[in-house]
Amino acid sequence: MAYKDEQLSEEKVFKDPVHRYVHVRDRVIWDLIATPEFQRLRRIKQLGTTNLTFHGAEHSRFNHSLGVYEIVRRILNNFKGREHWNNEERLLCLSAALLHDLGHGPFSHSFEKVFKLDHEYFTQAIIVGDTKVNEVLQKVGPDFPNRVADVIGKTYEDQLVVSLISSQIDADRMDYLQRDAYYTGVSYGHFDMERILRVMRPIEDQVVIKSTGMHAVEDYIMSRYQMYWQVYFHPVTRSAEVILSKIFGRAKALYQDPDYEFKLEPTHFISFFEENVTLADYVKLDETIVQYYFHLWQEEDDAILSDLCERFMNRRLLKYVEFNPNLQMNDYMELMRLFKQAGIDPEYYLVVDSSSDLPYDFYRPGEEEERLPIHLQMPNGNLKELSRHSDIVESISGKKRTDHKLYFPVDLLKALTDKRVRNAILEILYGQGESSNVD
Amino acid sequence: MAYKDEQLSEEKVFKDPVHRYVHVRDRVIWDLIATPEFQRLRRIKQLGTTNLTFHGAEHSRFNHSLGVYEIVRRILNNFKGREHWNNEERLLCLSAALLHDLGHGPFSHSFEKVFKLDHEYFTQAIIVGDTKVNEVLQKVGPDFPNRVADVIGKTYEDQLVVSLISSQIDADRMDYLQRDAYYTGVSYGHFDMERILRVMRPIEDQVVIKSTGMHAVEDYIMSRYQMYWQVYFHPVTRSAEVILSKIFGRAKALYQDPDYEFKLEPTHFISFFEENVTLADYVKLDETIVQYYFHLWQEEDDAILSDLCERFMNRRLLKYVEFNPNLQMNDYMELMRLFKQAGIDPEYYLVVDSSSDLPYDFYRPGEEEERLPIHLQMPNGNLKELSRHSDIVESISGKKRTDHKLYFPVDLLKALTDKRVRNAILEILYGQGESSNVD
Amino acid sequence: MAYKDEQLSEEKVFKDPVHRYVHVRDRVIWDLIATPEFQRLRRIKQLGTTNLTFHGAEHSRFNHSLGVYEIVRRILNNFKGREHWNNEERLLCLSAALLHDLGHGPFSHSFEKVFKLDHEYFTQAIIVGDTKVNEVLQKVGPDFPNRVADVIGKTYEDQLVVSLISSQIDADRMDYLQRDAYYTGVSYGHFDMERILRVMRPIEDQVVIKSTGMHAVEDYIMSRYQMYWQVYFHPVTRSAEVILSKIFGRAKALYQDPDYEFKLEPTHFISFFEENVTLADYVKLDETIVQYYFHLWQEEDDAILSDLCERFMNRRLLKYVEFNPNLQMNDYMELMRLFKQAGIDPEYYLVVDSSSDLPYDFYRPGEEEERLPIHLQMPNGNLKELSRHSDIVESISGKKRTDHKLYFPVDLLKALTDKRVRNAILEILYGQGESSNVD
Amino acid sequence: MAYKDEQLSEEKVFKDPVHRYVHVRDRVIWDLIATPEFQRLRRIKQLGTTNLTFHGAEHSRFNHSLGVYEIVRRILNNFKGREHWNNEERLLCLSAALLHDLGHGPFSHSFEKVFKLDHEYFTQAIIVGDTKVNEVLQKVGPDFPNRVADVIGKTYEDQLVVSLISSQIDADRMDYLQRDAYYTGVSYGHFDMERILRVMRPIEDQVVIKSTGMHAVEDYIMSRYQMYWQVYFHPVTRSAEVILSKIFGRAKALYQDPDYEFKLEPTHFISFFEENVTLADYVKLDETIVQYYFHLWQEEDDAILSDLCERFMNRRLLKYVEFNPNLQMNDYMELMRLFKQAGIDPEYYLVVDSSSDLPYDFYRPGEEEERLPIHLQMPNGNLKELSRHSDIVESISGKKRTDHKLYFPVDLLKALTDKRVRNAILEILYGQGESSNVD
Repeated sequence: MAYKDEQLSEEKVFKDPVHRYVHVRDRVIWDLIATPEFQRLRRIKQLGTTNLTFHGAEHSRFNHSLGVYEIVRRILNNFKGREHWNNEERLLCLSAALLHDLGHGPFSHSFEKVFKLDHEYFTQAIIVGDTKVNEVLQKVGPDFPNRVADVIGKTYEDQLVVSLISSQIDADRMDYLQRDAYYTGVSYGHFDMERILRVMRPIEDQVVIKSTGMHAVEDYIMSRYQMYWQVYFHPVTRSAEVILSKIFGRAKALYQDPDYEFKLEPTHFISFFEENVTLADYVKLDETIVQYYFHLWQEEDDAILSDLCERFMNRRLLKYVEFNPNLQMNDYMELMRLFKQAGIDPEYYLVVDSSSDLPYDFYRPGEEEERLPIHLQMPNGNLKELSRHSDIVESISGKKRTDHKLYFPVDLLKALTDKRVRNAILEILYGQGESSNVD
Repeated sequence: MAYKDEQLSEEKVFKDPVHRYVHVRDRVIWDLIATPEFQRLRRIKQLGTTNLTFHGAEHSRFNHSLGVYEIVRRILNNFKGREHWNNEERLLCLSAALLHDLGHGPFSHSFEKVFKLDHEYFTQAIIVGDTKVNEVLQKVGPDFPNRVADVIGKTYEDQLVVSLISSQIDADRMDYLQRDAYYTGVSYGHFDMERILRVMRPIEDQVVIKSTGMHAVEDYIMSRYQMYWQVYFHPVTRSAEVILSKIFGRAKALYQDPDYEFKLEPTHFISFFEENVTLADYVKLDETIVQYYFHLWQEEDDAILSDLCERFMNRRLLKYVEFNPNLQMNDYMELMRLFKQAGIDPEYYLVVDSSSDLPYDFYRPGEEEERLPIHLQMPNGNLKELSRHSDIVESISGKKRTDHKLYFPVDLLKALTDKRVRNAILEILYGQGESSNVD
Repeated sequence: MAYKDEQLSEEKVFKDPVHRYVHVRDRVIWDLIATPEFQRLRRIKQLGTTNLTFHGAEHSRFNHSLGVYEIVRRILNNFKGREHWNNEERLLCLSAALLHDLGHGPFSHSFEKVFKLDHEYFTQAIIVGDTKVNEVLQKVGPDFPNRVADVIGKTYEDQLVVSLISSQIDADRMDYLQRDAYYTGVSYGHFDMERILRVMRPIEDQVVIKSTGMHAVEDYIMSRYQMYWQVYFHPVTRSAEVILSKIFGRAKALYQDPDYEFKLEPTHFISFFEENVTLADYVKLDETIVQYYFHLWQEEDDAILSDLCERFMNRRLLKYVEFNPNLQMNDYMELMRLFKQAGIDPEYYLVVDSSSDLPYDFYRPGEEEERLPIHLQMPNGNLKELSRHSDIVESISGKKRTDHKLYFPVDLLKALTDKRVRNAILEILYGQGESSNVD
Repeated sequence: MAYKDEQLSEEKVFKDPVHRYVHVRDRVIWDLIATPEFQRLRRIKQLGTTNLTFHGAEHSRFNHSLGVYEIVRRILNNFKGREHWNNEERLLCLSAALLHDLGHGPFSHSFEKVFKLDHEYFTQAIIVGDTKVNEVLQKVGPDFPNRVADVIGKTYEDQLVVSLISSQIDADRMDYLQRDAYYTGVSYGHFDMERILRVMRPIEDQVVIKSTGMHAVEDYIMSRYQMYWQVYFHPVTRSAEVILSKIFGRAKALYQDPDYEFKLEPTHFISFFEENVTLADYVKLDETIVQYYFHLWQEEDDAILSDLCERFMNRRLLKYVEFNPNLQMNDYMELMRLFKQAGIDPEYYLVVDSSSDLPYDFYRPGEEEERLPIHLQMPNGNLKELSRHSDIVESISGKKRTDHKLYFPVDLLKALTDKRVRNAILEILYGQGESSNVD
């Protein structure tokens, strides 16, 4: 029997809190899960620093990847008979679903920003490169790795396949909303996925939703909206992200500084600092490595690096106030001046972070980030864009919301001995000297 | 106001998936949570290697510690008016609950076994030693750290306080059963805690259960029983534990071997290898450090150490068969001989692991590990030991169940070129050459 | 001890699937629950005919009334120390919460419409009239029944008390949304009530919401929106309501027809038909009585009454199409003509039903049904109307949505022997002769 | 196309709180659900009087019947490919599952006892008699109704089919445990049905359980045990059942009394009183009819009948004490004497009720009620009876537990003017004159 058609002698199941069970019958999928590259995802948290705000959010990308696979598996089951995919095409969908986050690094949000990397690029690189994952995929067919990579890069010719894991209502989003809600414990993030799966219809190059399922989709869009603002953009989480970025930035700057010498050579980071990362370097990294360095760097001579690492490891985060950089530039300039005067480097300790979300968008051809809209299939068979049928979705459609915060170390500020500078800073930040700002 | 009476200006809440919310009003508790020693628990998983079997079980001891605190908080709330504890005694209960697992190291099950350590000893050491936790506790009163340590050591004079976190139905067990069930996703582990809390009555030096709540307690005991056998003693999890123990053991042996030199000095482990661990060394350790070394050791020259580390990190676990060491000693001796002949060191690759549990025990004075029984308070006020009133509990009371497994690397065995040895080994293990035994 | 201060020797609890437990300590509440007038609510379903669409929705108003009581009990617990209500005022809130639906009749939606009754009037009448409920309330104080009735009539001077059970975010709505979601099994209707209760603040004559809880309130508003359109206004449920109204209407017409004689005198209905209902007549009615008559009336000589009753009892409902009476008056007139020609009385078998909902409204002084808006309390203490702070709520605020359906007996139509008339009717209804319209 | 092979143009779903969705594709099933005999089950509560103890338990047998159907549907889906049933055999299983409770009358426990009826007999009678259900089944095949009736009577030749709905682990039990737990809100009744369904294997004439699923089955057995003692045999529920039996008994006695005349002829009951019930009479009855009479009978001249009806409708139940009729016969005789002396008829007001349960039984050939044991299929293929493999099940296997209660009207007793008699009675019942015994 061809490798691609091999079935396990007995179906394997993973107990999953979100989907109850994840089912695996295909040898290919089982072998992919067993690769070191996929197992590495166990050491990368799905939500980076969110567990510093919601302590339950300690789940890994391994967890989520299995979930996305399972959702696609169920979708394909429902499509059975409707869509005439052959077995290899089915495996393509399942593999792409399983592997779609394979290239994520530790704390990727900050990591990618500082080192100018892109996890999607690495996902594809792992799939087509010299890896165990590639070895498994090769056994399906010599071109199979490339096809999986194309699905992940959204360039695969059958856009229906792409849309299963990359659209405004895809298996990826459906899994993470539910999963992140489950682990954080928030009451948002629930919607009737079983119903959505039942009303999904493959039509040409997209998946549409039978109009009778519209309300379940509305619920999903609202979940997404609430999760973004309640969980993903939580200002305390972003405080930790700010610190992370500054740690990476500071370490890189010190490495580039000919006068500074690390106590222990930061071996795992060197190619990142030098911006010539190889695939082999990349897949070695995970959160245990990164945090090991944070441990070490607490002992470094550089006061900024050691302070930032200590803050991150012991969750002594930066405080924040609302701050609109567009309107308050003068305040910001004045704060920079005062920080310098106080001997606190504003590059590392006075940081504006802006987060914005577009919960749902209709199609705007030609715009930088085109997003395919969700289409409802009406009883007469016609398609209708979601926001034209749903008042609620219409109300938030295309509306970008942005939140700006200014982060700073209130502990250092309060400890300033120059009372004049101290009060001037706190006056700008809190309006009246000081407040009971807490997280 | 005395520090011990300080209240936060506004109650803080932690969103918790198990108890919905964890509430903190006391400054002392808030300050304890913020210490580096307590934050370190974020980097130690509650269930060690269980996530290799149940992928959802990635929650930390930080998570659990907050939960135990919250349960004790609720118990004390219910006791209000019944028990006349002063505020310091209340804080003592809460602090002991919060800190009871503070001394856990990374993968403590295997770790403690190999290095002959005891986490309870370290919990007490952190509480009374030179730490931030001690600093906070000192501010309540100079003797307060010792009292917290006594509660944890079960030597505190008011045994009622002790019983809240160490008895056969305590806040510790009630939290971990529910929490571990939640994160693994298994359907066991549920019982009506709200009802149990409502029927708990403090009587002299113990907490008894109003007899109308007996069925909720039965359910709790059954949960415990099922969690032990379905989750905690799962043979796949134990396979990972076996590997862990062997890694620690091998690294120690190599360190003691004058002819062997590590590529990178295992700094963090040296005092453990030399068995002269200091508190400072101990609290530095967490899972990120340990796994960093596992990463490094995959590159060590020693084939055994590097193979074991690679197995652990990539989840290439050992397979197992049922094996009773008492009855099958001859088989075991023969297997050892064959392994040696095959060049596979049986010390590291042929391991018997035995797990046993005593789900509930009545009181047997004088026995090595005395366990206080659970008492029901009957309508007439008399106390009755649980197993005398509940058929179900009676049926499992005092019955120890033990499970033996023999672990071995089936991949290495199958790859043996000496077919005779190979078949002889597999014949003993599987009865008929080979089977499709999988996890 | 005064009756109003009497406590039960031991707290009573009701196991409740929605709130886990309902707690009762006050003798007054316990005695109210035991009255025949309150027990009667067990025989009146909370959602009337909804169980014909969602089979799980068989819960009674008894169920819901306990839930509203429990929510108010928890709110008052949270207010403790904030609001200095004396015990009688506390009992007033609890009693009003428990009794607020006491005057509901069987299938009250249709019943009240046909017989021109108002359940709120009867709630007050039971409270102040010659009933066991009144007897219990009297024992609190001679004026106590009137005060409870005033709270229910929203005329009580302390509008804060009124707002607990009658405002846009009150205990009544919070209970029914969750409860109806639970019993129907839909995935809507969930929101974080525990959080909402924690951020409620009594301020003068209203309850405001701490602004940090805004998202939980958004979720609640969205739940309400979804429950209305997915459950409460479900077209199949409305089909059953249409039949109910027509049964009541037909029976009344026959009673008033001097030429018609019922086989069995409809004793329980006579005062309703004659529009001189007494309190004693009213409280005798419940769903068992009404359905008993439906059983009997299936055997009546009048073909319309017997057909309608048979439809209701055996769930042979009317089918429906979208139909806007404002735009399609000509169609309607033509259908009436055709129905008459076919010998099907359009008064009973061609019915337009319109449902509309206003999910949230800001304050519009002077409008017919003024609704108090929900206010957020900002960090600086100021109040801000919800829709000015929440994009989502703003988007649906003040927008009334109406749904029109036309109901008809498709079975009778299909069975018409005059094919011309038959086809003409179906042509208007379905556009093309006939469709596979189903529920 | 043959009727039996007809599929609905689109799958219908029922939203179900327990199984999420109930799916119907077969025209036969859809038509069965639409029959008056099946719709009648909406008017019969699944748990009779349990809602007087657990107010949430207001769900109907309609609710449960759909659930059993859905479970069997899922089991058959899992068996697909394993078992070569033709379509008619599949429909047989589904129809029997759907209809298995069709013959239940209102409050059947008490009803059947007093009138010496058997619901299973009526289930079969409806299926083979002159009914709409029979009409639908006939269309599948002339012998089909008989085959369905045989399955329900457990006499169908393929015992595998029978075992799906009548064995110690069948769809009936699996549905009602979960469903009754859901509606009552108790925390018992949960087990991992999805797992049980996955490990069920059809083997010859029985369904066996793969041994890896043993713990899920243990959990199911424990659920059953807890539900029996916590819910089904709750003493307050039994108090209501006692009253019901006495109402039926009294009404029958009065009917047989030539000197007594009912104010309104109890038409619906006459054939029951006369013990010559026809199928037509039987299917007319439901809870609305029965309760209508209870309403009327409150106004009857007979003091006992009117008192009992009033008690039932207003939930003024009888109180109870533990009472072992085998050991306390003298007490009982003395109480009878005293009751008579006090003018309270002991036949109606002094009632011993005994409930007993056998949670699991192994096979005992020849015993009166043989029960087929649950078999585990071991890895080697051998079958092993469950209690030989599970300690927990072994501990309760074959053990019948019985609970005896004595019921009496404490209100009447307390109101006795003859203090001597009053005290003598209370002395026997409560040991010391009186107690605060409450529910």
